[in-house]
Amino acid sequence: MNPNRFPHILRRHRFTFGALMLFALASPGQANNWQALPDQAPGAGSDTPAQVELGRMLYFDPRMSSTGTVSCNSCHNLMEGGDDSRPTSVGVKGQLGGRNAPTVWNAAFLSVQFWDGRAPSLEEQAKGPPANPIEMGMDSVEAAAARIREIPGYLPYFKAAYGPSARIEPDSIATAIASFERTLITPASPYDRYVKGDESALTPQQQRGMQTFASSGCIACHSGPNFSGPELPAGSGFFQHFPAFPGSPYSAKFDLMADRGRAETSGDKADSHIWRVPGLRNLSYTAPYFHNGRVASLDEAVRVMASTQLNKDLTDDETADIVAFLKALDGPFPRLEMPRLPPARGDLLQ
Amino acid sequence: MNPNRFPHILRRHRFTFGALMLFALASPGQANNWQALPDQAPGAGSDTPAQVELGRMLYFDPRMSSTGTVSCNSCHNLMEGGDDSRPTSVGVKGQLGGRNAPTVWNAAFLSVQFWDGRAPSLEEQAKGPPANPIEMGMDSVEAAAARIREIPGYLPYFKAAYGPSARIEPDSIATAIASFERTLITPASPYDRYVKGDESALTPQQQRGMQTFASSGCIACHSGPNFSGPELPAGSGFFQHFPAFPGSPYSAKFDLMADRGRAETSGDKADSHIWRVPGLRNLSYTAPYFHNGRVASLDEAVRVMASTQLNKDLTDDETADIVAFLKALDGPFPRLEMPRLPPARGDLLQ
Repeated sequence: MNPNRFPHILRRHRFTFGALMLFALASPGQANNWQALPDQAPGAGSDTPAQVELGRMLYFDPRMSSTGTVSCNSCHNLMEGGDDSRPTSVGVKGQLGGRNAPTVWNAAFLSVQFWDGRAPSLEEQAKGPPANPIEMGMDSVEAAAARIREIPGYLPYFKAAYGPSARIEPDSIATAIASFERTLITPASPYDRYVKGDESALTPQQQRGMQTFASSGCIACHSGPNFSGPELPAGSGFFQHFPAFPGSPYSAKFDLMADRGRAETSGDKADSHIWRVPGLRNLSYTAPYFHNGRVASLDEAVRVMASTQLNKDLTDDETADIVAFLKALDGPFPRLEMPRLPPARGDLLQ
Repeated sequence: MNPNRFPHILRRHRFTFGALMLFALASPGQANNWQALPDQAPGAGSDTPAQVELGRMLYFDPRMSSTGTVSCNSCHNLMEGGDDSRPTSVGVKGQLGGRNAPTVWNAAFLSVQFWDGRAPSLEEQAKGPPANPIEMGMDSVEAAAARIREIPGYLPYFKAAYGPSARIEPDSIATAIASFERTLITPASPYDRYVKGDESALTPQQQRGMQTFASSGCIACHSGPNFSGPELPAGSGFFQHFPAFPGSPYSAKFDLMADRGRAETSGDKADSHIWRVPGLRNLSYTAPYFHNGRVASLDEAVRVMASTQLNKDLTDDETADIVAFLKALDGPFPRLEMPRLPPARGDLLQ
């Protein structure tokens, strides 16, 4: 790995698989390793209601795309699992993307964004899709900001959020969207209630699955309150090889090696098949699974992970128990009010 | 016009332009001709909260389209003007439609739907886009219903709305969407408050524009509480020639004759350039204007109408006054909560 391409901290947190297994094997018996999701995402305390409201508007505004048809919510649909129910997403002009849309729910708990972790923050992530030619299709993030500037009703909201000298520019847009996204958390799942002491919150099968999740080694990578690894400073990233055992029959079956992960953007061979460890909350809502969206069911996703990451074949009972446990990480989702979007000139979109 | 193609009632209500002008010229001085929008749309009284809630879910569910990317809300965006800010809409696979998306706000007050009035109800309108190959792209409305049936979380909502033997089929889907749409009304605009007695609700310019709107003859067609003609039984339709004066220079400038309106679907030459009279509420939010979305500004739209329908050139002052009055028909829009959409199988969309 080229230290000039990625910050040093990334290397610190890319533990070897062996080290993680040791961590995992030490964990199962220790009940206090199970963490509930905090009631507030990192950084949310300094977001103001006006910033969150502006972010909500921008998140849902399709006019930030070249055709006026694709908003953040198009692929990260908050009315559903924070994704789009598709294997890979569709952007402007019907173009098909290359990776599955990761859920935006609880993304605020991840220390890096995108499947390959190439964005160190929600703010930097928000600047990606607008200027991606097959996603929102604007010529640049500056062009996306110019588009928003051309909707005059927005300026008062930027001033309310950032003061009287506020400007509509990529940074203020991205910051507002990130503020909104920090509110998109689901900290009251049955699992969270269980960890906080409500023993009736999980069924016996879910409790069994919880133990199997730990004893099988899943928790080696999927640790922490968001099951996306240890809590790390923003920008750190927690990465793993996937597939760790490329010889798994699932590698070929689901074409798991075609996309080289971080190496696709870094160009560094050492980054081949390195991926950010995703969270496991709300999986009932985010099928299909994995970076290429090739695995349709949660049962199959669990079997794939056991095989490719742990070199294990789970029994049907173990699989069912783990799936039952994972469903205890679902929701509940907060009620969301729709924003009102300011009107646009009739010649804004052609 | 072929009486076998359209119900008799349509012919009853397609008044001649001359008769309408007489009606209009008799109207301006009669203040009691100005009607506020009712607080409830026709038929809304028999919709249950469960039916409205199911309709809200279906309205926002993009999985009713072939690609899973286009919902009712994609082109009729309730966060904005109930339309899409575009000249004509974009459906699945980036396909461009031929007509401007009419607003869904207050559509419940129209006795027929679509620009050419080809649907006699909200329910029938709702069955159009799902099976339109360039809109939502399903093979048929039955295929759209089958798609919804494949999302198991929907059935309880259909039972709550329509009883324990409810089925997920085109009729129940369309009925639920119509129930939701009957809640999408804006009956508390400044104009409505003015008509109900609050004289301060309109500025002096808006009051002047109101009189010019009547004295110029606009009100001949744009009468009634929704400014879309007289209140008529569902399915009736209130139609007009557009352009009524095809020699207007605007006909060529904005290509107003290329689309033959009702004749495009009826095939009847007598229907050429016959259109349903649209409502005029929330025009600040629905630019660009007319069936082809070629007119960008409201000022220009008013000038076009005066020229093509009344054979008049308005002065700049008259135009500005009418525009000011039309803006008194804006909003306010009700607060809307986002629905929660049930999750889909990972292989539902490919």
